[in-house]
Amino acid sequence: MTDSPALAPGAGELFQLLRDGVPRTRAELAKATGLARSTIAARVDELMRIGLVTPVADGVSTGGRPPSQFALNPTAKVVLGADLGASHATVAITDLAGTVLAERTDAIDIASGPEAVLTWLVDGARALLDEVGRDVRSLASIGIGVPGPVEHSTGRPANPPIMPGWDGFDIPGWIQQHLPVPVLVDNDVNIMALGERAVVWPAVDNLMFVKIATGIGAGLISDGHLQRGAQGVAGDIGHVHVTRGGDVPCTCGNRGCLEALASGPAIARALRAAGVEAETGSDVVDLVKRGNVDAIQAVRQAGRDIGEVLTTCVSLMNPSVIAIGGSMARVGEHLIAGVREVVYTRSTPLATEHLSIVQSSTAEKAGVLGASMLAVEYALSGDALTVGLAAV
Amino acid sequence: MTDSPALAPGAGELFQLLRDGVPRTRAELAKATGLARSTIAARVDELMRIGLVTPVADGVSTGGRPPSQFALNPTAKVVLGADLGASHATVAITDLAGTVLAERTDAIDIASGPEAVLTWLVDGARALLDEVGRDVRSLASIGIGVPGPVEHSTGRPANPPIMPGWDGFDIPGWIQQHLPVPVLVDNDVNIMALGERAVVWPAVDNLMFVKIATGIGAGLISDGHLQRGAQGVAGDIGHVHVTRGGDVPCTCGNRGCLEALASGPAIARALRAAGVEAETGSDVVDLVKRGNVDAIQAVRQAGRDIGEVLTTCVSLMNPSVIAIGGSMARVGEHLIAGVREVVYTRSTPLATEHLSIVQSSTAEKAGVLGASMLAVEYALSGDALTVGLAAV
Repeated sequence: MTDSPALAPGAGELFQLLRDGVPRTRAELAKATGLARSTIAARVDELMRIGLVTPVADGVSTGGRPPSQFALNPTAKVVLGADLGASHATVAITDLAGTVLAERTDAIDIASGPEAVLTWLVDGARALLDEVGRDVRSLASIGIGVPGPVEHSTGRPANPPIMPGWDGFDIPGWIQQHLPVPVLVDNDVNIMALGERAVVWPAVDNLMFVKIATGIGAGLISDGHLQRGAQGVAGDIGHVHVTRGGDVPCTCGNRGCLEALASGPAIARALRAAGVEAETGSDVVDLVKRGNVDAIQAVRQAGRDIGEVLTTCVSLMNPSVIAIGGSMARVGEHLIAGVREVVYTRSTPLATEHLSIVQSSTAEKAGVLGASMLAVEYALSGDALTVGLAAV
Repeated sequence: MTDSPALAPGAGELFQLLRDGVPRTRAELAKATGLARSTIAARVDELMRIGLVTPVADGVSTGGRPPSQFALNPTAKVVLGADLGASHATVAITDLAGTVLAERTDAIDIASGPEAVLTWLVDGARALLDEVGRDVRSLASIGIGVPGPVEHSTGRPANPPIMPGWDGFDIPGWIQQHLPVPVLVDNDVNIMALGERAVVWPAVDNLMFVKIATGIGAGLISDGHLQRGAQGVAGDIGHVHVTRGGDVPCTCGNRGCLEALASGPAIARALRAAGVEAETGSDVVDLVKRGNVDAIQAVRQAGRDIGEVLTTCVSLMNPSVIAIGGSMARVGEHLIAGVREVVYTRSTPLATEHLSIVQSSTAEKAGVLGASMLAVEYALSGDALTVGLAAV
């Protein structure tokens, strides 16, 4: 079994077609994907054999024998999605349509290293499978998001700054010793972008998901595809220098980075310096919800700082949706108002004419939903059939 | 005949395979593109019938009848590439491998409107065809770059700021009244990115081409594909605010934009204010080449301003190559040194570890070469066979 090979050509398109649950004929699938009818037929047969796809009422006759229609059978298998954060992690069992059947969130410490954290993940997976009355043979695949850069083709973290002990660790290989299914790993913000798009914006091809929490990062979907960049670190906007940054030191070793001014801990630090009691980003959220004016002003200013960087992103990428998520997005409109204030003032009319800047609707579920999407897409791909599932 | 429909699924991949001139079998083409063998066979037959592809020495026997190999016949047809700038335009006839057979560059005024400029283009096309001894029946397709945003699917400029009279103009429709072949239109910086990649960096999937001339803009190739964004204005980095920008007015109506500080005219204006005689960007280039210290310092500072914006682009897109082109790139290393100084100081190590920032090697030919690439890709696509060429 390989770790996480690239999808077969057209596999993603086949999945996109199947996941809406609409019945289609082989000919319709071949036409829409550009794949060979023989390829489609073989994949559909294999998907039928393992029960992921079921025949439904026959389609309209074209003169000869009426072609048979097929649709995804969303309950045939389940997948596991996991969103590992710096201090919390969520793991969920979903069906193949992305519906959450069971989930759990626990406090973890990502810095305790891969074995401790992945043991929690495997134990959680088994407990959740029990909870929904399924066994490991029902599990099609696993998708995982981690808070750092990942070499997506191997599923290994690459120099992740806040994940000591994880650099180069073979996450798929370790998990497969316990759960013998295909394992896909990606950066947490990338999976959040996938989750937000799948649930809220399925028709949008140019979307940017911005996570504002302990760190700040973005997931980019451009022309319908997640963009990872040459080294897999696309979207790493937390260490862009901002005007207000000055000499404020950042954990990265540089000064004046966005993250050093507008992350949850940075806002809390600024409030403490002004005599307001706030230890964490969560404290800041509580203060804002209680109407503390200092906290509201600090959050609004953080929004402007983020807006300064996003203005360049808007000019460069021309997205039609920017979704703001992460734990700090819970402060609501005050943060987004700051972002909008700067982006709509500073960007060209063409770039903002059809641009929506909104709070993430999936809120803190974006990550685990996106991880499930990664797993489902793989489960329905040709590779999963020939490589992963066949080996189970 | 339609204007410029999207390529058929896999057509781009077929083209990428064919354009290297290496002979391949139908089975090899089917395997590499993921297209049906029947689809490949039909396309290869059609490409053979019209002479774009020729059979070559048979491949290795697989036991049965040896499969036949095919390769692109680069001289079977020609394409026209045109790069329309604000004040100059280049039109070239190339073969299907992108080799320039004949070209001309003239002073034009894009603001004189579409009919005047496109008449020049059509006259130039006919003259060049005469020059290389081919007639219109040899012309497979036309690719055009224009200095403004374009709705790529229709080939119509969309609110182009420096192209009065062109907004919504049906460029393909007008040209096809004179030259009845498929016409593809894109933004000039996008075609430069395509040209630079095709000629210099064929193996690079994440490349950013930055044009510095009267305006400043970028063409983005991410994950191997040109990124146009939701409204087709991706890469419009000229109107990002820069730290040094202050209240300097920009033609866009805003203040402190990159273009208002670092474009050719902006550098000339700054030099004039310092008592140095410079009317245009071209004067600045001449001063730098003569070793004028004021001009060298001004160009270096412009490089730093551009670097400030590119730092955010590097964090966001994680390219492995940034190619600096446009007429101001002729000043050479002084400009690039300023860009590098800021990008390598301000970006994270992961994003710059494998990043090359280089002067465009195609220089001012990038545009016309990219326009030819757009035309060649289309000529070898399934749509061109069924829609465009069949109609000629």
